[in-house]
Amino acid sequence: MSYAPINLKEKFTKFDEHWSPRVIAEMNDYQFKLAKVVGEFVWHDHPDTDEVFFVVEGCLDIEFRDGKVTLEAGEVFVIPKGVEHKPVAQSECKIILVEPRGVVNTGDVQSELKADNDVWV
Amino acid sequence: MSYAPINLKEKFTKFDEHWSPRVIAEMNDYQFKLAKVVGEFVWHDHPDTDEVFFVVEGCLDIEFRDGKVTLEAGEVFVIPKGVEHKPVAQSECKIILVEPRGVVNTGDVQSELKADNDVWV
Repeated sequence: MSYAPINLKEKFTKFDEHWSPRVIAEMNDYQFKLAKVVGEFVWHDHPDTDEVFFVVEGCLDIEFRDGKVTLEAGEVFVIPKGVEHKPVAQSECKIILVEPRGVVNTGDVQSELKADNDVWV
Repeated sequence: MSYAPINLKEKFTKFDEHWSPRVIAEMNDYQFKLAKVVGEFVWHDHPDTDEVFFVVEGCLDIEFRDGKVTLEAGEVFVIPKGVEHKPVAQSECKIILVEPRGVVNTGDVQSELKADNDVWV
């Protein structure tokens, strides 16, 4: 096995695309993904799984049909499975996503923001 | 559902015990736990699951039988299931652990460092 640490800051330098998660680690069948986001994403849900958002830098709003949560750096939120949400960032925000391998960023919604899955960095 | 963010810094103020993980969030059947650690832990493994270490503050060595990895703040490492390891921190270090609900900090090893499981903060 490799004994190299996974350095978040260094991994974030390796891509610039927004709303395009990059896998940095796997734990069993779960993946840790980095993403840079800005602007509005699409309304979607993940019917089969919860999803963790962890803001590393910047500020992220996650809108729900009946409210929203605002995450600053160092804050975490778990989106329950099946709950529609729309992430929105006023300026670029760096986040970690944790979810099972195979989860698509837009859920079942057709959108130009749908990203390739399982892209490592 | 609650729309309150989970703030890591605030959660870390709520306990002082070392090697005593506190759950802050659940995603499906996985838990995110905070821990403050210092000194040497015991050699152990988790035969059924990988385990993620994420250093938030300070520096953590994780020793293996054939080497070690040193994690600084903002660095992540995945311990593969079944691999013996011993975390060591020269001074207090704050970490996030991610692993399935029910994982005991010392694995199957009998130790006074065995912590109560599923303690939330």
